[in-house]
Amino acid sequence: MNINYIEAWNMLNSMDNILLITHSNPDGDAVGSIFALYGILKKLGKNVRCEIKDIPAVMQMLVREDAFCDFREESVVSVDLADTQLLTNELKAEYADKVNLSIDHHETNAVYAEKTLLKADAAAACEVIFNMVTEAGFEIDTEIAKCLYVGLATDTGCFRYANTTASTLRAAASLIEKGVDSAKINTDIFETKSRAYVMFETMAMNSLKTYLDGKCAVLLITKDMYKKANITESESQGINALPRQIEGVLAGVTVKERTNGTYKISIRSKEPLNASEICALMGGGGHRLAAGCELSGTAQSVINTVLKFVKQAIDEL
Amino acid sequence: MNINYIEAWNMLNSMDNILLITHSNPDGDAVGSIFALYGILKKLGKNVRCEIKDIPAVMQMLVREDAFCDFREESVVSVDLADTQLLTNELKAEYADKVNLSIDHHETNAVYAEKTLLKADAAAACEVIFNMVTEAGFEIDTEIAKCLYVGLATDTGCFRYANTTASTLRAAASLIEKGVDSAKINTDIFETKSRAYVMFETMAMNSLKTYLDGKCAVLLITKDMYKKANITESESQGINALPRQIEGVLAGVTVKERTNGTYKISIRSKEPLNASEICALMGGGGHRLAAGCELSGTAQSVINTVLKFVKQAIDEL
Repeated sequence: MNINYIEAWNMLNSMDNILLITHSNPDGDAVGSIFALYGILKKLGKNVRCEIKDIPAVMQMLVREDAFCDFREESVVSVDLADTQLLTNELKAEYADKVNLSIDHHETNAVYAEKTLLKADAAAACEVIFNMVTEAGFEIDTEIAKCLYVGLATDTGCFRYANTTASTLRAAASLIEKGVDSAKINTDIFETKSRAYVMFETMAMNSLKTYLDGKCAVLLITKDMYKKANITESESQGINALPRQIEGVLAGVTVKERTNGTYKISIRSKEPLNASEICALMGGGGHRLAAGCELSGTAQSVINTVLKFVKQAIDEL
Repeated sequence: MNINYIEAWNMLNSMDNILLITHSNPDGDAVGSIFALYGILKKLGKNVRCEIKDIPAVMQMLVREDAFCDFREESVVSVDLADTQLLTNELKAEYADKVNLSIDHHETNAVYAEKTLLKADAAAACEVIFNMVTEAGFEIDTEIAKCLYVGLATDTGCFRYANTTASTLRAAASLIEKGVDSAKINTDIFETKSRAYVMFETMAMNSLKTYLDGKCAVLLITKDMYKKANITESESQGINALPRQIEGVLAGVTVKERTNGTYKISIRSKEPLNASEICALMGGGGHRLAAGCELSGTAQSVINTVLKFVKQAIDEL
């Protein structure tokens, strides 16, 4: 059942011995919203603990060591979790059907919880939490504000993406007034790359080729590049954004060789090209401007297949 | 003489046949503030024209063709102009001592105008203009809002930099409510690179070397790279930000070969390293975290000189 800010706030106030969970491979919004809510509930005098793993190094600054204590929970609250399928296997087995309250911003929320506070127009789960505490008149401190800011900034690409609304920017403004050093956080999150990633990025850029009169740009990432730079495929995700950035490119394609001989294809498109439709023709799917699929063959045959479907889609525009 | 928002607003209202000027090599804030003020003054029924050249391609969308009409001005208003030295030679000769009102956000404003509306805590001249019209109760339209948004976004690196305040973010929020498609603007300005620039960037990254236990990263840009990629030194400025982005780097150095045999050095530093102090030792200067100088010699001798002073500064921390 969907509830509003104040109903969710009252529900949190009525709980104790609370477990907070979020999706696996947590991003800035997952980490930010879990530790923000942790801080809020501690200030309300609650017994709270968090279950969260694999926190990215750059988000470690938000971690509250006292959040990993051990007690038997009476209530379970999820944040930034669209579906219990996105929990780690461990948490899914234990809690998939035991979530009392889900605080989320994904339109696709599977409504798995007893009660759901869902605001699909919010840029981040952190924006939902910010609006809830603001409506409740609860005063956040700098530490909580920092967590919320990280969630807002990461889910909006530092306020660049289309999900950034006037409300998102006003929330960020209030958080800065609470003492958040936004410039420091932005530098750490958006302006810092590991030496390994820079080496990987250089190799990836050396592989860049353009096709179809410059409307399609392709990066070819080989197993060897991951090895040389010593990074994993999941650490390499940022590279997918690169080919689309080139002026005139409608389809930015990244082809990544996997150890099992297949290739993972990512297509980022610019309007009016629909990447999701192109990937669907190759057995994949995704969003309108960012989609993917998996293909077998040689690197060149895979690229040829992708180019055929991209050309077809561009010709149909 | 410094005046406040309402005094500046009243002054603008009392003027007619107005010429608007800004600094040469205009950036997003110069272009945004000149065309925003143009739109505002036109709505007030004024006769207005702009003198602005070399508008970057990505800002062309803000240009109002009717702004380049020809009439003899009675009043001159400058925007985003810290000093008349920053005018083109042509405009300097004609107007350096004839500016009636300067609307600016540079702490270093030389107070060259008859009256000055200076707000040094504003992130952009566009923020000053936004605050002025807001205080005056003037309703801006989407076109004006777009100009102001571009100024705010470009001068703050899309709200990443330390000059971004709560007030900046609230101004941006109001502009989005006026119908600005911020995501489209951000993509055009921050997520788009020319094919030539990407080629140049790839060559530059291939030259990357790190020194001093990874605390100093150096890019070496040769004349040949500009030629191969077909870009000019001024189009290559963005590259200077790159070496500092690497984790652990305190001094990000870019060494650019010039046609006259000298090398232009750019140093971007991270706190607590002071790039300006290092460059001063080599006959240059600048800001604390971004400074430069010029050196003669071979590429390697120049790099060695820079490394010597960077090492000295790091050792002193």
